[in-house]
Amino acid sequence: MSGSTFGNHFSVTTWGESHGKALGVVVDGVPAGLPLCEDDIQIMMDRRKPGSSRYSSSRKESDVVEILSGVFEGFTTGNPISMMVMNEDHKSSDYKDISDIYRPGHADYTYDYKYGIRDYRGGGRSSGRETIGRTAAGAIAKKILSQLGVEVQAYTKSIGPVEIDYQRFNLDQAHKNPLCMPDEKAAEEAAHFLQDISSGKDSAGGVIECVISHLPAGIGEPVFDKLDANLAKAIMSIGAVKGFEIGDGFQAALAAGSFNNDSFYIDADDHIQKSSNHAGGILGGISDGSQIVFRAAVKPTPSIGKPQRTVTRDGRETEIEIRGRHDPVIVPRAVVVVEAMAAITLVDLIFSNMCARMDGICDFYNRRK
Amino acid sequence: MSGSTFGNHFSVTTWGESHGKALGVVVDGVPAGLPLCEDDIQIMMDRRKPGSSRYSSSRKESDVVEILSGVFEGFTTGNPISMMVMNEDHKSSDYKDISDIYRPGHADYTYDYKYGIRDYRGGGRSSGRETIGRTAAGAIAKKILSQLGVEVQAYTKSIGPVEIDYQRFNLDQAHKNPLCMPDEKAAEEAAHFLQDISSGKDSAGGVIECVISHLPAGIGEPVFDKLDANLAKAIMSIGAVKGFEIGDGFQAALAAGSFNNDSFYIDADDHIQKSSNHAGGILGGISDGSQIVFRAAVKPTPSIGKPQRTVTRDGRETEIEIRGRHDPVIVPRAVVVVEAMAAITLVDLIFSNMCARMDGICDFYNRRK
Amino acid sequence: MSGSTFGNHFSVTTWGESHGKALGVVVDGVPAGLPLCEDDIQIMMDRRKPGSSRYSSSRKESDVVEILSGVFEGFTTGNPISMMVMNEDHKSSDYKDISDIYRPGHADYTYDYKYGIRDYRGGGRSSGRETIGRTAAGAIAKKILSQLGVEVQAYTKSIGPVEIDYQRFNLDQAHKNPLCMPDEKAAEEAAHFLQDISSGKDSAGGVIECVISHLPAGIGEPVFDKLDANLAKAIMSIGAVKGFEIGDGFQAALAAGSFNNDSFYIDADDHIQKSSNHAGGILGGISDGSQIVFRAAVKPTPSIGKPQRTVTRDGRETEIEIRGRHDPVIVPRAVVVVEAMAAITLVDLIFSNMCARMDGICDFYNRRK
Amino acid sequence: MSGSTFGNHFSVTTWGESHGKALGVVVDGVPAGLPLCEDDIQIMMDRRKPGSSRYSSSRKESDVVEILSGVFEGFTTGNPISMMVMNEDHKSSDYKDISDIYRPGHADYTYDYKYGIRDYRGGGRSSGRETIGRTAAGAIAKKILSQLGVEVQAYTKSIGPVEIDYQRFNLDQAHKNPLCMPDEKAAEEAAHFLQDISSGKDSAGGVIECVISHLPAGIGEPVFDKLDANLAKAIMSIGAVKGFEIGDGFQAALAAGSFNNDSFYIDADDHIQKSSNHAGGILGGISDGSQIVFRAAVKPTPSIGKPQRTVTRDGRETEIEIRGRHDPVIVPRAVVVVEAMAAITLVDLIFSNMCARMDGICDFYNRRK
Repeated sequence: MSGSTFGNHFSVTTWGESHGKALGVVVDGVPAGLPLCEDDIQIMMDRRKPGSSRYSSSRKESDVVEILSGVFEGFTTGNPISMMVMNEDHKSSDYKDISDIYRPGHADYTYDYKYGIRDYRGGGRSSGRETIGRTAAGAIAKKILSQLGVEVQAYTKSIGPVEIDYQRFNLDQAHKNPLCMPDEKAAEEAAHFLQDISSGKDSAGGVIECVISHLPAGIGEPVFDKLDANLAKAIMSIGAVKGFEIGDGFQAALAAGSFNNDSFYIDADDHIQKSSNHAGGILGGISDGSQIVFRAAVKPTPSIGKPQRTVTRDGRETEIEIRGRHDPVIVPRAVVVVEAMAAITLVDLIFSNMCARMDGICDFYNRRK
Repeated sequence: MSGSTFGNHFSVTTWGESHGKALGVVVDGVPAGLPLCEDDIQIMMDRRKPGSSRYSSSRKESDVVEILSGVFEGFTTGNPISMMVMNEDHKSSDYKDISDIYRPGHADYTYDYKYGIRDYRGGGRSSGRETIGRTAAGAIAKKILSQLGVEVQAYTKSIGPVEIDYQRFNLDQAHKNPLCMPDEKAAEEAAHFLQDISSGKDSAGGVIECVISHLPAGIGEPVFDKLDANLAKAIMSIGAVKGFEIGDGFQAALAAGSFNNDSFYIDADDHIQKSSNHAGGILGGISDGSQIVFRAAVKPTPSIGKPQRTVTRDGRETEIEIRGRHDPVIVPRAVVVVEAMAAITLVDLIFSNMCARMDGICDFYNRRK
Repeated sequence: MSGSTFGNHFSVTTWGESHGKALGVVVDGVPAGLPLCEDDIQIMMDRRKPGSSRYSSSRKESDVVEILSGVFEGFTTGNPISMMVMNEDHKSSDYKDISDIYRPGHADYTYDYKYGIRDYRGGGRSSGRETIGRTAAGAIAKKILSQLGVEVQAYTKSIGPVEIDYQRFNLDQAHKNPLCMPDEKAAEEAAHFLQDISSGKDSAGGVIECVISHLPAGIGEPVFDKLDANLAKAIMSIGAVKGFEIGDGFQAALAAGSFNNDSFYIDADDHIQKSSNHAGGILGGISDGSQIVFRAAVKPTPSIGKPQRTVTRDGRETEIEIRGRHDPVIVPRAVVVVEAMAAITLVDLIFSNMCARMDGICDFYNRRK
Repeated sequence: MSGSTFGNHFSVTTWGESHGKALGVVVDGVPAGLPLCEDDIQIMMDRRKPGSSRYSSSRKESDVVEILSGVFEGFTTGNPISMMVMNEDHKSSDYKDISDIYRPGHADYTYDYKYGIRDYRGGGRSSGRETIGRTAAGAIAKKILSQLGVEVQAYTKSIGPVEIDYQRFNLDQAHKNPLCMPDEKAAEEAAHFLQDISSGKDSAGGVIECVISHLPAGIGEPVFDKLDANLAKAIMSIGAVKGFEIGDGFQAALAAGSFNNDSFYIDADDHIQKSSNHAGGILGGISDGSQIVFRAAVKPTPSIGKPQRTVTRDGRETEIEIRGRHDPVIVPRAVVVVEAMAAITLVDLIFSNMCARMDGICDFYNRRK
């Protein structure tokens, strides 16, 4: 397999290139009886759409999603759900002059080396537009999670050196400012920072944080399909992500065991709780009932206006200045993609967990008799 | 599947618990004709064995590996290779008194919640001994890689606050000092630091770095099975790992695009090279021919002698002081496991890449006629 | 996974319902550099199209296939290939009156029981139109096979009691008569037989035979993914197929070992050959270089005009006479689907076989240096 | 993957060769809380053991199974269950003289061609002893099924020309006579027939039938993972099986639709029933609540004493008379393997079905709160 499918029980297969006819996704393993319509998907699609702010590329795409199968009279039928977005704005002529040049920081060279052929139009399959399929599938995953009471919320933690201050943390803000930062003041600073970066024809990176609430304990498989391992793969498979950490992450490497261990106690409702959450809600790869907290490091946009040294397909050295429509920072648009991939991963492991215990299975089938 | 298998083409299935009869692994997809004997495996096993230094637990296990299938007259046959290590030292009585207590930082609670049953002897399946199977499989993967000229080398980058100095970097050192640090001076400092930590009945974490050399370009699949995504899953699935980063990792989030992009140039042999390696050897999920460099954050050993607040299985609060044989730091013993998981991931994707191009496939079959 | 994907290395995911907006398929794992255009696909699609003869249903669909991704400038790019056919003729009103009735021999009852919801329009996902995706994917598989010199040819062996006579066998005939029978005389008899069956408002079944030529030896994995086991699954997953046999099949159960064993000899070119082919070209699950020969039993079309006793969704007994457009026999239209599924299975195992030997892998990578 | 794993949710990986150190299996995905001990497995193992009658090979193996992991204090823990049988009687010297000869009807040639190496001792991996792992895994599957009330029973339907008479059908007989025929008279005739065959240094084949009772409706996935398709693969992957059919199978190809369709009616308990079962209990790939009935054609034992023409590894023609311990018919010993593979397939799809409906999933998680 060339790896275009993610998930064993809730299985997502994306397809499409930046400047092809369309992009889409097939989601197999969606249970029957989930209310679903195109608006449920579109709302997520609109969050990743280009052109929604001055910080994102000016490519104009309406990115209207269409459900082609698997839904009948407003409910899912248990059959695969195929979703598609047509490409409208494919000015591939923009790319003709770079068709022979390997852009630094892009996958041009590695694709060409691997396949001996390269769809140079906007990066082809390596384009950020590949995340359209992920986002649409993530919208279904989030709908399923909402029926189980589970919430997934990602936001921008930092852009370049500007970081949110947890003292001023306000999640509502993340949905109000175009940088998705849950701290109004930090968002303003970041906006200024980006303006400077942009005017210097350069770009910036940042960190996305994601919080999963109300996930029941017991989710995740103990060895290779640990919840954190699968989340790591899901998030690291997003184009520009260079690092992943759960809970205290790299800070945990510096801590003492007595600090890093989260003590257990019994709460007023006689439930087992942890008095801290350095673990980020996962012990031994399995959710412990606390919030899941993870972070992803996003590199600066590789497409920049500054001149860069590079080489051509036929082995000559040259210089490139990338023109056209490009985000000075990818972070805000990647927030919804992180949410989508996290949601897909959760649903897959929630489904897997249904067969963890013999009593649960017997109970399930006895109740149908 | 409850996730005890890793890899699609080179497929590793581990089994066994800390204090069961034995632990082992089945490796499917090993090509025929690889010279292989038990010594090839044992050399890796000995690197992860407990009791090999004062910094690791004093549990005495010879951990002798036996190959049970898939090898005939010194060569692999193409059939699954089953390998096993018998457990000798199973003083499970040590654990009787904690059988009803959930140890902080361990998977006791989550296993019990998920399965309604818990093998309390030494953590059962969640024990570090599960990595025996991974290490044995990794030894085969490394043997395959060596035939292709690919090298995988991990080492301790830091223990607690003590970090190696790249000015003094000497990989030979990593094999000489028990902390696997490629910097003699740092290793000494770290040893002192651990002595302090130990005497305070506490524990420490650290960071492991891994370098992969001479990997051809073109390895990794472009969307979900990106080389870095699969490495992230492989490494995050190791018990105590809390973070993963490739190349500049979280630092990349702070950099400008013009700095983070690696320029291409043509070297004296007319090959395409990068003038820097912020990307860590991967572009768009596919190896670019440079060194692959990644890091894993390892949390401090959760088993500590200091008293900790916790709860019992039946919902009472209590205190625990963990006695017995435990490493004050997991990092040095995890180094070989990181190498093993990286090697397994690479072989899986190297095999996958054999079908990337039609001309390669035609050539392969034409040459057999 | 709800099982809409087939194949590990060449991976086919179908979607769509009989009367939904469209039907399609995503094929992942197509190697880069294969010349491919829509005509390559359409030629196979036209062979399964309804309305092409008086023996097939009179539903009028042009079934024009569109390639949406994975092909650039006439060649595959290594990225997933998405293909789609729009549904034009969706008179779902035809089905309103049977929306509450379970048709005998159809999947109406089992779908409704499993999912609690049922797309009653033309059988929804259980319709023969689901094979559109398989056929399109099979066209790509056949293109790959043709580059390797492998041929897959299916034809009608029998319809009801009318069987081809191998003395008169002429494969060209299979492409000329609408019943796909490679025996002109048998085809005529079968046509008369079908006329009688039709006029009695009844239907007939038959047997499809498939011959695979020039497949190299060594294809197929030795245990669960035997070539014959995977073919059996592929073919039995086609709607109306009730039996599968390879080589002498059920006749082998009656034979003596001394007859059933195929002797080996050395031919004029010093190649190893078999003097007979009772095995059907497979020994131990692996191709032996002879022709692969298998057969599939196809049940009579379940939709018949004759009155049948059945029940309604809400548990009342009733009678049904199915009106409208239905094939009196499915066999001729299933021929191309059998070819498609066989081709997909072969490509998957041909790709898998590329990693069978260490020398082959080393050779592959050495030649790229 | 070289295909040594079967099943997505209940996942069985076998390993081992005829004359290696041991043979075994790892079963992943066994739910926690199933009572299980070695006796549960041994009872199935004893049914496939050689030397249990004069009709089976005289190789003496006690084939004692050992559970190495995944069971604690009499219950499964949710972790992979590793089981092993040591090989005692490995007189590989028996095989030295055939190490350069390809036995007709065996996989010697195809293994050697594929892998370039061949474990000639008793067929190596292609030996019937590979089914040890399947049988052990099947014993666990049957234990799970028994908790759900599902029964799987296979028996010998025919040996050579001698077939059971359904008028005299008595399942108890199948467990009493060594040929596993549920018809005492037929068993006697078959015994005489085998004596004749044996004394002529020849062998016979036969047909195995399997009946699955009390399987709930709704099991099986609608497209590629149809219950009958997965059963076909499972059964066809057993060494000597050459054909598979469900319900009326190949007879259905001859029937009229009005006969082959099973009418529905409402029984005294207001349940939907079928008045016949030509379909064999499956409609559209999904169980319909009736008995599942399928048959497998088993070829005659390829190892025969009669002289046969064949070739050597280095390309010379020769003659072979196979001496030593071989069954004149495989059928009776394969009966338990058919049961095992059917049980494994059922459990896998029963688990898969737990995620078919959103209401079932919500209910499952709500009940745990």
